[in-house]
Amino acid sequence: MTAARRFWGWGNEGAGPNAEQQRGIARTISERFSTHEGLRPEPRIEDVDLPTPRVTLPAALADFSRADPLSRAGHTYGKSYRDVIRALRGDFAAAPDFVAWPRDEEEVATVLDWCGSHAIAAIPYGGGSSVVGGVEGRREGPGALGDGYTGTISLDTSRLDQVLEIDRTSRAARIQAGIFGPALENQLRPHGLTLRHFPQSFEFSTLGGWIATRSGGHYATLYTHIDDFVENLRVITPTGVCQSRRLPGSGAGPSPDRLFIGSEGTLGVITEAWMRLQDRPRFRGSATVTFDGKDGFARGAEAARHLAQSALYPANCRLLDPGEAAFSGAGDGTSAVLVLGFESASHPQEEAIQHAVECCQDHGGTASTPRIQQADDRSTPARDDAAGAWRNAFLRMPYARDVLARMAMISETFETACTWDRLAEFERAVRHAALDAAKRIGETATVTCRLTHVYPDGAAPYFTVMTPSRRGSELEQWDEIKAAVSEAILTHGGTITHHHAVGRDHRPGYDAQRPEPFARGLSAIKAELDPHGILNPGVLIDAPETL
Amino acid sequence: MTAARRFWGWGNEGAGPNAEQQRGIARTISERFSTHEGLRPEPRIEDVDLPTPRVTLPAALADFSRADPLSRAGHTYGKSYRDVIRALRGDFAAAPDFVAWPRDEEEVATVLDWCGSHAIAAIPYGGGSSVVGGVEGRREGPGALGDGYTGTISLDTSRLDQVLEIDRTSRAARIQAGIFGPALENQLRPHGLTLRHFPQSFEFSTLGGWIATRSGGHYATLYTHIDDFVENLRVITPTGVCQSRRLPGSGAGPSPDRLFIGSEGTLGVITEAWMRLQDRPRFRGSATVTFDGKDGFARGAEAARHLAQSALYPANCRLLDPGEAAFSGAGDGTSAVLVLGFESASHPQEEAIQHAVECCQDHGGTASTPRIQQADDRSTPARDDAAGAWRNAFLRMPYARDVLARMAMISETFETACTWDRLAEFERAVRHAALDAAKRIGETATVTCRLTHVYPDGAAPYFTVMTPSRRGSELEQWDEIKAAVSEAILTHGGTITHHHAVGRDHRPGYDAQRPEPFARGLSAIKAELDPHGILNPGVLIDAPETL
Repeated sequence: MTAARRFWGWGNEGAGPNAEQQRGIARTISERFSTHEGLRPEPRIEDVDLPTPRVTLPAALADFSRADPLSRAGHTYGKSYRDVIRALRGDFAAAPDFVAWPRDEEEVATVLDWCGSHAIAAIPYGGGSSVVGGVEGRREGPGALGDGYTGTISLDTSRLDQVLEIDRTSRAARIQAGIFGPALENQLRPHGLTLRHFPQSFEFSTLGGWIATRSGGHYATLYTHIDDFVENLRVITPTGVCQSRRLPGSGAGPSPDRLFIGSEGTLGVITEAWMRLQDRPRFRGSATVTFDGKDGFARGAEAARHLAQSALYPANCRLLDPGEAAFSGAGDGTSAVLVLGFESASHPQEEAIQHAVECCQDHGGTASTPRIQQADDRSTPARDDAAGAWRNAFLRMPYARDVLARMAMISETFETACTWDRLAEFERAVRHAALDAAKRIGETATVTCRLTHVYPDGAAPYFTVMTPSRRGSELEQWDEIKAAVSEAILTHGGTITHHHAVGRDHRPGYDAQRPEPFARGLSAIKAELDPHGILNPGVLIDAPETL
Repeated sequence: MTAARRFWGWGNEGAGPNAEQQRGIARTISERFSTHEGLRPEPRIEDVDLPTPRVTLPAALADFSRADPLSRAGHTYGKSYRDVIRALRGDFAAAPDFVAWPRDEEEVATVLDWCGSHAIAAIPYGGGSSVVGGVEGRREGPGALGDGYTGTISLDTSRLDQVLEIDRTSRAARIQAGIFGPALENQLRPHGLTLRHFPQSFEFSTLGGWIATRSGGHYATLYTHIDDFVENLRVITPTGVCQSRRLPGSGAGPSPDRLFIGSEGTLGVITEAWMRLQDRPRFRGSATVTFDGKDGFARGAEAARHLAQSALYPANCRLLDPGEAAFSGAGDGTSAVLVLGFESASHPQEEAIQHAVECCQDHGGTASTPRIQQADDRSTPARDDAAGAWRNAFLRMPYARDVLARMAMISETFETACTWDRLAEFERAVRHAALDAAKRIGETATVTCRLTHVYPDGAAPYFTVMTPSRRGSELEQWDEIKAAVSEAILTHGGTITHHHAVGRDHRPGYDAQRPEPFARGLSAIKAELDPHGILNPGVLIDAPETL
């Protein structure tokens, strides 16, 4: 199950930087930010004080559930900065009373039935990688559970972990929702297929979690969100199974799938999906373009916009500002860097990367010589260039973030999207909001920005904020920065989340953003499908005041 | 307003085949099908017997409403075969009591308020081109209005017809929903922009209608449905204005827009949308590929599948079976024909069409020499090839259909979609279902098929059925064929509609297809947003039994 996973932070026990590397990170950061908080040791499960369960494990669920400390502590939070800080403090007040690992749909239904008859909140849990409080039985604040529940359980889908059926002709597969990214790709690889959806959490998140949260993958254009890969869905709601028809396209009323995609466990438990797959790419073309000078990021953004509007559909089109580029080793800190990549299973990408590079040169960029990989070139292309450096840093990031959390450094990311016409002002406003909030706290911050996804009509800017904090005040300081940034995002026409989802942390922004009639409609569906209000209460919709 | 429109059939008065051409069509068809029903004259509004209005025009709406016979008759039906036959018979029993043409959102809200307080059914009407009974106040049968309404009005949005704002940087425009296709493109053209969404009904349908019905455009791959072009929506519901945020992408809960896209006027009246636009194409590449022999269509479909899975994204990839090819003049009736086209605003399409042609040759196709249009070639490419022949026939089709209806020939199309693994059996089953139904009636039928859209995971087959009927029995015979085809579509894993929408005609199939919990959810939203049940009752959801 999750034996090897860290109960308090990112990833697996023993993975990430070793003790010496941790000290190195701490030293570098201490010097750079003049902070003197030492590196707090990793917490141990033996020292964790869990609340006494309010319900005992019922016989009907005993076969596939556990109430041991490691299971409960490991399912208390997701993996946000707030979560790690609370775990480091030993605060596990929100721990579920037990964790259920249903082995099939019948057991999922049994859990929901039991919860419905006992006023127990059921929190669906895939990989637990939420960074927005999506899997937490929070007792107060935004998205809190109501007082009416007699208990809270975590419904872990990770035993539903198989690729059940592959349709090679249509390039699709029927897949259980609890499967993790690497297992999914491993089961598809022998067939020459890939889902080609790689969120940063890939290793520690599940297909069902991706669908429930409208996950964003690594690729920068065309099919960015998981939404477009869903061919059909099977969802266990408290009032029945909802299975849509497997179709390549349809015009029959509002899409049933689009209602459950992004429903974040509030309407049902996603158990299976037919997913659209792709052939494994064989042709590649890549290049790195630097944009110098004070307006480097702005010119890079213009180039990215033209590329996004060109119908060339680069797989990668990621613009790093000078700070991001330096941090990840993709640049020297003086220039913005655009990481460009094309890939295809069927035809050479030489012409595409050449067009893209010319477009960037038209905007004053300096391009590396494109690297071309043809079908007959069986060697894995070396990853020693800027793209490779960036990718490695990207995957290491969450582990490093936990080291920073242990020394009371706030290191947080804010992701959003806005249309191109607003982008320049938007980026300035969000940057200033974060810097100002840090200054009010009395600290110096660095704010860096990258564009993670580019669309014909806009981009997804992703901000990283780093600022020292004082041990014991991290959450309040984080909250202040988060509130300031969220306000700037909404005021300047962004979305409160491009791909991290809403959860509980984004509730205030989400409530402000969504149209009021839609909110009422969503509550009406929730009441119909989940009449006892047991599913992930507080997420997207307020928990009922009385049950 | 709609003065020049035919009240009983397709298009404008005086447009379509002239009297001599009509007689020519009739002669050809009579010989081919050995039918002897003469060509009934076009009906005249003076001869139409409309039911006495049940409500009189209220003062609050008088400024922008009319109850004259032409307005009422012209808003009684959509443009399906059933609709034309009933109009030819002078059956206007379902006529609305009056037609309102609100000039702004306030007047839309006034209409809805008035309907809510008087138990009047309000049927939103864009261009009125529905071929599924979507704009009809039907009294009995599937999708019928309940008995509880004291009257029915048609809410015509055609005065909301302006492009209000253009954002050239993000390539998007804020557009009123009542605008017709040609006016929309005319207002965008000076900016070098296009929505590039061309359903067959383009000339006589509106943006709001496209969005409400999940319209499918002319282009065969990538962005086929209007869904993907919607950046945000503004909808007047009976309980408030629902406006979503203008965003290039978002992961904030289930998409609000996707709830209203395809809602077919049951949840609110769409008044505005920010739509994603494209630069006008300057580079083109096209070719026609024939696939000979008995398995020509099957091999053509395999070629189309490989193209759809190649990420080349042809603008046109339309496979005609030998009968379709002959009918439209694109072939001689012995071969299947694949019409291929690429276009781009930014880069030459020579390589793309070359790859596509090679792929077709690998599947045994014989390709014409590709026609290439480069940016500096300002001449409009000639349309004298198979693609051009097909396109002209495509646009003339609905006019010709009305001539056939006047001679009691059934000429109907059935559109659907299914995954590639099912396609061959699916196509056979639907063909046989139509032929068998015609045989039961005692008539010979021709059934032809084309693939209108191709997806990586499936295709959209479009069937045309022609069979003589007996005057007076057309509707019963049509119903029998429609029921047989619909059953075959659902049994063999298709969708009851790929882009014609559900309306009232597709209700039985839609009810069988949609997941039951989703149906309950949709009814719950409807009750919340439209508590008096006035909006397009019977479409998607049963009208309430009591109001």
